[in-house]
Amino acid sequence: MAGVDYLADERNKAEFDVDSMKIVWAGSRHTFEVADRISKLVANDPAFRKDDRPMLARKELFKNTLRKAAYAWKLITELRLSEEEASKLRFFVDEPAYTDLHWGMFVPALKGQCTDEQQSKWLPLAYKMQIIGCYAQTELGHGSNVQGLETTATFDPQTDEFVIHSPTLTSSKCYHTVEVLCTWWPGGLGKVSTHAVVYARLITDGKDHGVHGFIVQLRSMEDHKPLPGITVGDIGMKFGNGAYNTMDNGVLTFDHVRIPRDQMMMRVSQVTREGKYKQSDVPRQLVYGTMVYVRQQIVADASCALSKAVCIATRYSAVRRQFGSQNGGPETQNWSVDSQTLWLVYCFMLVAEFLLLISAHYTKSYTGLIQVIDYKTQQNRLFPLLASAYAFRFVGEWLKWLYTDVTQRLAVNDFSTLPEAHACTAGLKSLTTTATADGIEECRKLCGGHGYLCTSGLPELFAVYVPACTYEGDNIVLLLQVARFLMKTVSQIGSGKQPVGTIAYMGRVEHLLKSRCSVQRAEDWLNPSQVLEAFEARAARMSISCAQNLSKFSNPEEVPNKEKTESDPSLAMPTSEAVQTPEQYYNDNPEPNSLIVDVDLNRMILGFAELSADLVEAAVAHCQLIVVSKFLDKLQQDIPGKGVKQLLQAVCGIYYLSLLHKHQGEFLATSYITPKQAALASDQLRALYSKVRPNAIALVDAFNYTDHFLGSILGCYDGNVYPKLYEAAKKDPLNDTVVPDGYHEYLKPLLKQQLHSAKL
Amino acid sequence: MAGVDYLADERNKAEFDVDSMKIVWAGSRHTFEVADRISKLVANDPAFRKDDRPMLARKELFKNTLRKAAYAWKLITELRLSEEEASKLRFFVDEPAYTDLHWGMFVPALKGQCTDEQQSKWLPLAYKMQIIGCYAQTELGHGSNVQGLETTATFDPQTDEFVIHSPTLTSSKCYHTVEVLCTWWPGGLGKVSTHAVVYARLITDGKDHGVHGFIVQLRSMEDHKPLPGITVGDIGMKFGNGAYNTMDNGVLTFDHVRIPRDQMMMRVSQVTREGKYKQSDVPRQLVYGTMVYVRQQIVADASCALSKAVCIATRYSAVRRQFGSQNGGPETQNWSVDSQTLWLVYCFMLVAEFLLLISAHYTKSYTGLIQVIDYKTQQNRLFPLLASAYAFRFVGEWLKWLYTDVTQRLAVNDFSTLPEAHACTAGLKSLTTTATADGIEECRKLCGGHGYLCTSGLPELFAVYVPACTYEGDNIVLLLQVARFLMKTVSQIGSGKQPVGTIAYMGRVEHLLKSRCSVQRAEDWLNPSQVLEAFEARAARMSISCAQNLSKFSNPEEVPNKEKTESDPSLAMPTSEAVQTPEQYYNDNPEPNSLIVDVDLNRMILGFAELSADLVEAAVAHCQLIVVSKFLDKLQQDIPGKGVKQLLQAVCGIYYLSLLHKHQGEFLATSYITPKQAALASDQLRALYSKVRPNAIALVDAFNYTDHFLGSILGCYDGNVYPKLYEAAKKDPLNDTVVPDGYHEYLKPLLKQQLHSAKL
Repeated sequence: MAGVDYLADERNKAEFDVDSMKIVWAGSRHTFEVADRISKLVANDPAFRKDDRPMLARKELFKNTLRKAAYAWKLITELRLSEEEASKLRFFVDEPAYTDLHWGMFVPALKGQCTDEQQSKWLPLAYKMQIIGCYAQTELGHGSNVQGLETTATFDPQTDEFVIHSPTLTSSKCYHTVEVLCTWWPGGLGKVSTHAVVYARLITDGKDHGVHGFIVQLRSMEDHKPLPGITVGDIGMKFGNGAYNTMDNGVLTFDHVRIPRDQMMMRVSQVTREGKYKQSDVPRQLVYGTMVYVRQQIVADASCALSKAVCIATRYSAVRRQFGSQNGGPETQNWSVDSQTLWLVYCFMLVAEFLLLISAHYTKSYTGLIQVIDYKTQQNRLFPLLASAYAFRFVGEWLKWLYTDVTQRLAVNDFSTLPEAHACTAGLKSLTTTATADGIEECRKLCGGHGYLCTSGLPELFAVYVPACTYEGDNIVLLLQVARFLMKTVSQIGSGKQPVGTIAYMGRVEHLLKSRCSVQRAEDWLNPSQVLEAFEARAARMSISCAQNLSKFSNPEEVPNKEKTESDPSLAMPTSEAVQTPEQYYNDNPEPNSLIVDVDLNRMILGFAELSADLVEAAVAHCQLIVVSKFLDKLQQDIPGKGVKQLLQAVCGIYYLSLLHKHQGEFLATSYITPKQAALASDQLRALYSKVRPNAIALVDAFNYTDHFLGSILGCYDGNVYPKLYEAAKKDPLNDTVVPDGYHEYLKPLLKQQLHSAKL
Repeated sequence: MAGVDYLADERNKAEFDVDSMKIVWAGSRHTFEVADRISKLVANDPAFRKDDRPMLARKELFKNTLRKAAYAWKLITELRLSEEEASKLRFFVDEPAYTDLHWGMFVPALKGQCTDEQQSKWLPLAYKMQIIGCYAQTELGHGSNVQGLETTATFDPQTDEFVIHSPTLTSSKCYHTVEVLCTWWPGGLGKVSTHAVVYARLITDGKDHGVHGFIVQLRSMEDHKPLPGITVGDIGMKFGNGAYNTMDNGVLTFDHVRIPRDQMMMRVSQVTREGKYKQSDVPRQLVYGTMVYVRQQIVADASCALSKAVCIATRYSAVRRQFGSQNGGPETQNWSVDSQTLWLVYCFMLVAEFLLLISAHYTKSYTGLIQVIDYKTQQNRLFPLLASAYAFRFVGEWLKWLYTDVTQRLAVNDFSTLPEAHACTAGLKSLTTTATADGIEECRKLCGGHGYLCTSGLPELFAVYVPACTYEGDNIVLLLQVARFLMKTVSQIGSGKQPVGTIAYMGRVEHLLKSRCSVQRAEDWLNPSQVLEAFEARAARMSISCAQNLSKFSNPEEVPNKEKTESDPSLAMPTSEAVQTPEQYYNDNPEPNSLIVDVDLNRMILGFAELSADLVEAAVAHCQLIVVSKFLDKLQQDIPGKGVKQLLQAVCGIYYLSLLHKHQGEFLATSYITPKQAALASDQLRALYSKVRPNAIALVDAFNYTDHFLGSILGCYDGNVYPKLYEAAKKDPLNDTVVPDGYHEYLKPLLKQQLHSAKL
């Protein structure tokens, strides 16, 4: 029955204006309009179909991605799309490809690190895609430690060239041998890019000046073969069907590859013809601007990926039905009851047992079905994810403001807010990507068995998304950076320096340590200032508690039972071959050195390492507070559209109350709330689920995703899932033939007891 | 450097006898010996290689699986392997295939539901694999509700046949049209099986007798084509590279397919030649025996899958290194310090800031690296998973005892323990599979970026494992069944009926409601009776709290603000088209009917549905208590081997203390522990991490997995990861050619600005 909207009834239940919500989600009418237009352009073009991705073998899949990238580029030029539209086109094509790295990393690196003269040479080539570039930074065996890179770029003053080289590494200290250290992971590197921005240790004048960036040509512009000294290839298949296998993540080694000196990107540092190393007075802090920008993008991507998964799971939860009965209504209507607790429960159970005994007869009359979205257990898992998608969207919007603020301050050499901006963006990157990866898999599970099919779209969505937890900073390392910032802020309490921005609440720490939650009824949990205080109090108390525990490590008598020294990954730390406890070291080396504060440092570092799990929890509490507060801020603004703000208030309530329940242990342990108040929060949460339930479909319609972009039969707009699943199954390669390949060789002999003569 | 064990230093740190632990893990010396021998047989045979799975397209992959299954069967017959050895062989081949369903579902169904005469006909054929069978039960659109099946088997007395048919379903009640209702999901069905056990509604004498099982031939024994009236095929690709795509999960519809009457499996019910329906006096409870057996298998599989992931992540965490420095030791050794808290933190931070300011210079001297397994944040995520693998192993062993106990009781018609056995196994199935699926993905993330490569083995392990959360009972539905059992038990308190088995603690509920934790020092958390009481108190209090809240629903004045009636998926419930609140209904229908208890039922069901999220949490608390108590029981037994029991005590401590921390909110909210005691638990947990750390590699060596079975470069025994990753990458199909397929068509024209004439 083509054209029927099987979710029409659901859509009619909405209590708000969906079109207005679409604008809220998009951020502005302009952004909505561009996205709407471009997504439909892509969706309506068969060249961009993507439902066949899981079925294609690697080479076919990759070749198809090259085709789509070329086709998209042709469209962009022929339709004269703006930069915004071109970027949106690539976004809606929704397929990792070398263009992501060319535009997302290579071009920005040129713009950020090349001199004006260098830019005038390289940027036109890159803008016209006469060269294709990638960004070669991560190394095999390394990940989070950029300073550990070993590729070297040694200046040769005789030829005015740098010699790029990946040394052989044999080190007994490392406990293993790696024949060649190589660049590993960069996208677009493996088969496509003609050029790369390469990071290597700059060695000139006999000195190692640390890591710098260079432009290196990788492949011949004539026949695309790797240039002499360059070994490059794909690193092999990755998690998922389709997913990131459309990308040629690469491995790269250099064997004394020579490049002209002027291919060192020299905006911030330079090497002269004589090989002298110099630095411009361009402040090193400029990199913070880029960092905030990149992290804003990541948070925005997180909200997008999560919203796709939530859209699919929500629509399918309304389509999917289980259990129920066809009886007309409750059997009886007598409401006058005995109120003795256990007796009533007992009666209930007697009847339930009776029902179970006659279940065979009783269940036969059950043919009506209940939508899975009506089950509180489903709502309890799904609605917080829906709320998170909106929450991350709004904090991502706020990060745009932060980026503008940071760049304005950098332009006037005001570095005062940088530590806070750094910590804030690090924490939000970590929080949103972890929650999104977990959320997508939860959405997949929420779809029951059919979530396991590739046609649900969710396996690929999960597989393509999870790297976000590892790239641009490992999520745990980032949280430790946040924790370090929190501990620094605690240490400055009472010093006169006011904490600013997202950490400003620490200026009220005395009040936050003493206050107690004043909630008395469930509805009190809807009061924004009550909620804010709760989250601030938890975060502050957890930070203070960590700081107090850290200080105990400076007092040897109070060191808890530990057997090894350990290192803090977010700080440098001395280490020794023979592992000793601090006490042992002291006994072995009775002549003290002078710096008290260095000893404190060592003990503090020990403490930081030992308590790192607690510090991570304190950092998470701080980051969740940021998201909650930005959502509440959003609700203070003018939000046009009938019923829109009220719905968003309910959604916001689900976000913070589900966090409160999940982290109930921390709210209780920090003694801000009582168990009774926690129970009231759960009551209010349940009430909000009921409020949001009739609006759920409309809330995900507000994302305005085409069926093409969602890439999911379970999440199709019209809800006509089952016939589509059935039709899609027919397209599987295994169904090309009725009798499977391999029947004659491997099944028939087995069935005929003739395996002994079969060729296996 | 072939033959070097890069993890030798780690292995030398072990403080216990690994060979003895291997026996503990295996369960007995016999089981260890068989598994060891068979796993090596498989590992050493190139016919069973599996590292190429992700690279094969669907048809190739499937054909290869058929080859392996035939080869394995040939081995089994030629080597005359016992049933135990044959089962282990299939297990270590580690590839989902039709044989899993033939041996795991089809044969047991024949044994359990066929008469002796029927068994004598069908079993020999199945045992020799002259027929290949599968188990056709799930339907498209249905999942957890077996009673909703619509395939019918109508007796035709004229021909003495049943007519199997999948009707067309058009129902406006269902809000959608499904052209044909079909069987969907069964493995081995899509392309391979010649026969199937089919479940359909038995209709005879004009009456619908509910669901029964039938043996149906699907394909011709001559040419393997589907028989007339049978439409069958594969349902399409599923999550993951390799993974379950080696299996032909199928879709099946019947168009008036006729089978002889004697192909109804007639052990429990029969249909006579005249079409009369009869039932044997075989108790329906016999199915409980099978259910316990199947769920024991699932729990054992969970421990296996989780242990594989943990083995990979632990070994790689010892291989992988980050940060650190090469300085010889702590800079100074002066230990006399000022103990003012914030001042010390402030000093620390001053130094840290100083370090940050000179970081460029300072970090250049850092070349030494620290193993990631030494980071507390890594231990905090990894070690609880390691502990869970051991915990699930031991509770799986206990379930074998439970199976024996249940079958012995069934043999003498003692059904008294069945409700408890049902709830216990339902809960453990749910708990262990959810924890394992989440744990495998966590292990993948713990491997950093390289966990994303197929060669890490973890993507496939995750994808092949997750269906365990959905098959044999949806995990949430199972927990609601446990909750129902808990509520029933609560209702029987004071009735004289003693709770037994895993619910026996409810017999002490008065004490458990009043007691308070007596922990005063961190080490007190190592006391088994202290721990047991804590988990019992939490579980009991949560159950009582749910029961009390449920009772409030019987009192209209106390019904919280709700707008819709909802249904409880674990109980039948009446429903009405027009949704009303109970109050509205009462107002509309002022003439009361008589049955008070039915009204209570309706309100109770409302309450059960409304509070289902809380009930699920109470069920989880009960299940976690079971696992903890069985682990503690295991430690009461004699466990041979130097240091083995002590290590397992530490591992057990990590299991229950990490659960306590994760669920701190519930332990605090139920007022059994104080925040201070929770903090002491965290202190003790950290100490246990330090205790286990030097033993971690040996603890995973104790699983005795071959590198073949693990299927992971990151988890290889000798730890020589990086060269292997590099070598494996070369094998990717994309590296078959230096210049990629698609260069000429899609890259060259783009680079040469000639896209306008390219064919895209």
